[in-house]
Amino acid sequence: MADTEPTQVPPTEVPAEGADPKGPSKSELKKRAKEAEKAKKAAEKKAKQDELAAQKAAADVDYATEFYGKLPLNQSQTRPRRARVQIASLNPNMDGQTVLLRARVQTSRAQGSKMVFLNLRQRTDSVQALLSVTPETVSKQMVKWAASLQDESIVLVEGVVKKSPEIIKSATVGDVELHVSQLHLIAGLEGRLPFTVEDATRPETEIESTEEVQYKRVLLDTRLNNRVIDLRTQTNQAVFRLQHGIGSFFREYLESQGFIEIHSPKLQGAATESGASVFQVSYFKGKAFLAQSPQLAKQMAIAADFERVYEIGPVFRAEDSNTHRHMTEFIGLDLEMAIEEHYHEVMELLDSLFKFIFTGLREKYSKEIEAVRRQFPADEFKWREGPEGTLKFSFREAVDLLVEDGVPRETLDDINTENEKRLGRIVKAKYDTDYFIIDKFPMELRPFYTMPDPEDPTVSNSYDFFMRGEEILSGAQRIHDPTLLAEKMISKGVDPASMTPYLDAFKMGCPPHGGGGIGLERVLMLFLKLNNIRRASLFPRDPKRLEP
Amino acid sequence: MADTEPTQVPPTEVPAEGADPKGPSKSELKKRAKEAEKAKKAAEKKAKQDELAAQKAAADVDYATEFYGKLPLNQSQTRPRRARVQIASLNPNMDGQTVLLRARVQTSRAQGSKMVFLNLRQRTDSVQALLSVTPETVSKQMVKWAASLQDESIVLVEGVVKKSPEIIKSATVGDVELHVSQLHLIAGLEGRLPFTVEDATRPETEIESTEEVQYKRVLLDTRLNNRVIDLRTQTNQAVFRLQHGIGSFFREYLESQGFIEIHSPKLQGAATESGASVFQVSYFKGKAFLAQSPQLAKQMAIAADFERVYEIGPVFRAEDSNTHRHMTEFIGLDLEMAIEEHYHEVMELLDSLFKFIFTGLREKYSKEIEAVRRQFPADEFKWREGPEGTLKFSFREAVDLLVEDGVPRETLDDINTENEKRLGRIVKAKYDTDYFIIDKFPMELRPFYTMPDPEDPTVSNSYDFFMRGEEILSGAQRIHDPTLLAEKMISKGVDPASMTPYLDAFKMGCPPHGGGGIGLERVLMLFLKLNNIRRASLFPRDPKRLEP
Repeated sequence: MADTEPTQVPPTEVPAEGADPKGPSKSELKKRAKEAEKAKKAAEKKAKQDELAAQKAAADVDYATEFYGKLPLNQSQTRPRRARVQIASLNPNMDGQTVLLRARVQTSRAQGSKMVFLNLRQRTDSVQALLSVTPETVSKQMVKWAASLQDESIVLVEGVVKKSPEIIKSATVGDVELHVSQLHLIAGLEGRLPFTVEDATRPETEIESTEEVQYKRVLLDTRLNNRVIDLRTQTNQAVFRLQHGIGSFFREYLESQGFIEIHSPKLQGAATESGASVFQVSYFKGKAFLAQSPQLAKQMAIAADFERVYEIGPVFRAEDSNTHRHMTEFIGLDLEMAIEEHYHEVMELLDSLFKFIFTGLREKYSKEIEAVRRQFPADEFKWREGPEGTLKFSFREAVDLLVEDGVPRETLDDINTENEKRLGRIVKAKYDTDYFIIDKFPMELRPFYTMPDPEDPTVSNSYDFFMRGEEILSGAQRIHDPTLLAEKMISKGVDPASMTPYLDAFKMGCPPHGGGGIGLERVLMLFLKLNNIRRASLFPRDPKRLEP
Repeated sequence: MADTEPTQVPPTEVPAEGADPKGPSKSELKKRAKEAEKAKKAAEKKAKQDELAAQKAAADVDYATEFYGKLPLNQSQTRPRRARVQIASLNPNMDGQTVLLRARVQTSRAQGSKMVFLNLRQRTDSVQALLSVTPETVSKQMVKWAASLQDESIVLVEGVVKKSPEIIKSATVGDVELHVSQLHLIAGLEGRLPFTVEDATRPETEIESTEEVQYKRVLLDTRLNNRVIDLRTQTNQAVFRLQHGIGSFFREYLESQGFIEIHSPKLQGAATESGASVFQVSYFKGKAFLAQSPQLAKQMAIAADFERVYEIGPVFRAEDSNTHRHMTEFIGLDLEMAIEEHYHEVMELLDSLFKFIFTGLREKYSKEIEAVRRQFPADEFKWREGPEGTLKFSFREAVDLLVEDGVPRETLDDINTENEKRLGRIVKAKYDTDYFIIDKFPMELRPFYTMPDPEDPTVSNSYDFFMRGEEILSGAQRIHDPTLLAEKMISKGVDPASMTPYLDAFKMGCPPHGGGGIGLERVLMLFLKLNNIRRASLFPRDPKRLEP
């Protein structure tokens, strides 16, 4: 170990008692020096061995001689290299095996003074452990101590796997239990839990059907204030595995299509796109702005010949709205690609991408989806999988559907959130799908860089994608011609001079291109029907929340 | 097409001339209505066919009748679905085939008035194209027009693949050339190029050996000011494919080890870690700070039972330093994991991760590495691959090596950048490796959350990883005990009250854990020896640069 002081060896150069008073010869001296060196090395080796033995002994004290108690703070004192197992791997074939594992105490329940049941948890897996007084290993004191362990304590458990006579319903691994021989506390709690993980996992419907509503319900704000506890629920462990899955499928699909990942700067010299909703940063003696999207950078990457790029990164919106679907910071799954003939090349690629993600989630994350459903019951997410393909409307057709349904046409210059949801319900009833595309948005609803339709300048080559009646992607063909781009900037009230580096990129020749930006948390929220976007973000940020 | 108005059909309900004045019978009316409906449908069908034919005709005008000229701005007018090819796919077996492709004109060179040679480029691939006067397809005017095309214009080319009699050295695909039959301009340039892509690709050594040094050298600042052109070089196309590769291998390895990806907020309520180098953001009526690293969030994810997490995201440092290796925004490859016994579990996993990345780059990106080497000559990056494993020192041993080499010990409380590089040279000379680890840093050099060594509180359970004598990773075991954590905060001058949500996470029970943060651009810069970190960032940010 690099941090251990070398053991001091007594100097051997001191003349031994009764040595030749004339002093030893030169060769004798050389010989002695050599021997001394050898002895020193042997002593060092011995010291190292002793040290290792002492460490091992210390480990044995920790893990064997004392059957229970609090372990000293782990500062990496020892490394006994004793294998530890995962609860998920326990099974009846291991009957009789002694195993060691680290887990949380979800609950501990004494039965008389001689027995205690522990529910041990690792992430989404749990197993029942039983501790009962046994001569020489488990004392009455040990049982008492175990019964007193606070919920959510982290323990190191040694025990024997036993096939359980009947399935234990309170554990996810129900066909075995653990007969504990040693139990040590790795980390306890300071203070009381704000709520139990069990309460935080309760299905919303169950809560509403009991009389203990006020008592059992853990409000969203309470959860978010104590997010570290809230995230320990099986539901949230599953939610964030699913979040990982979406990102992973996004990359997998795009890489199969020749895209490369880029990383564009979030610090910008100018307030881009639209000035109103941009955060300002103190930047040394000047100021900077947080990127609202990687829009400009990814377009410049296309002008720089990268052809097909994607980015996964934070996106900042200084909008003072506290709705169920807005956050001030979220993760954008962005892509941009050169077009050969038509922007529908992009729209079709995006459509294939979504279907790849949906199918991937259903196939590889069914266990997680099921776990979330237990707390947030929802219909399975549906999309058209047949040869007829994804349902697509033009904006005009979408408006017609709403008018048919009774919405006054004069209110439909734009489709607001309420009408979006209504449209989702109409589509679901009529076509039985939770996923569709609206193409050809009016030009006035889109940003300056959107390519107008070739026939009708009031319409644009742009599209939105929807899940359960909420927008999850916005995209378009972009203007790659600098003259038209500057014109559109002016007509939308953006000063071209404020965006010189961006405009310059197009002056140096840029191919026709298009793309889109997906809100990761929205896809997650809507696929699972979590009803609030904050539930789909690890540590959400909104105008009122910057912590934890 | 959703945006096309349905064709108007003349009403058929008007009574035909000479019809029965009494009016038709009911059944007759029904029959007529049916016929009218049928006629309407047929007319609609015909209109649609006509429209398609017109589109096709329009496409034919664009791509066939006119053999050259500027195409109208692509607003997705038509979609002829004519396959376009990649230059990289061209080969002598295609001799005689007609192909269509979009490419940049790298150079165009007239030979007399009847012939022009074009060097066509797509990303890192190029091919020679030849245009010569041919009856009925290529006119003199067309050749003249082609010769006048500005470098970096984007063209659509139709041509016949011809096996070339000898290898064309100026192109990457040298065994074929393209005999052009049609040539259209998709996007031209506005204004002059600030430098040519050819000049920007010139090897640094070659520049120094010519007399045209001042003329040929494209300075880094000029490159960065015109990054969109600079990024088009084969070198930069390769650099950013390699950047993609590093991120991709990072994820692949960690996912194989049970890690999940998280996304933590960059907007923070308090200036964390150390207040000095944090950017401040105006947040509605209050303020926020940009995260210096995902340190606190990823530790909270461990307290929330995620066990093994990683994140790829921007990291912000408000340090006013303009060195070759500092940026104000860079990409952190971060990970954090629970420890079972010893923090060396983390250090060893990180070591395996790096070796996985190095091996992956060498095996799957050799073409890209070679392309970069042509402009930035460098020794191949070396690491120990034998059973002896990666070279590891304690901080104390590293100091000894420097002292042996002549550095005064009293200057070595810390190892500064200069001494880091010196150490790199010593290690390279002595052990022939560009990659090593230093373990056991003094506690006073590390942040408050670093776990002290169990034997010597002046030393910590922390490590740095080095490539070519520069630090690329910093990591440690973290303090998971809230009491010790609060103590260390106070001793490092951090007010525990300013970090309540973070401290609370540990009060709710957190397993021992450790991790590290890797600078993506540093790994890329040092693997390739690019000498300046800005070359490893798509659009770099430093105290003086916020654009493009």
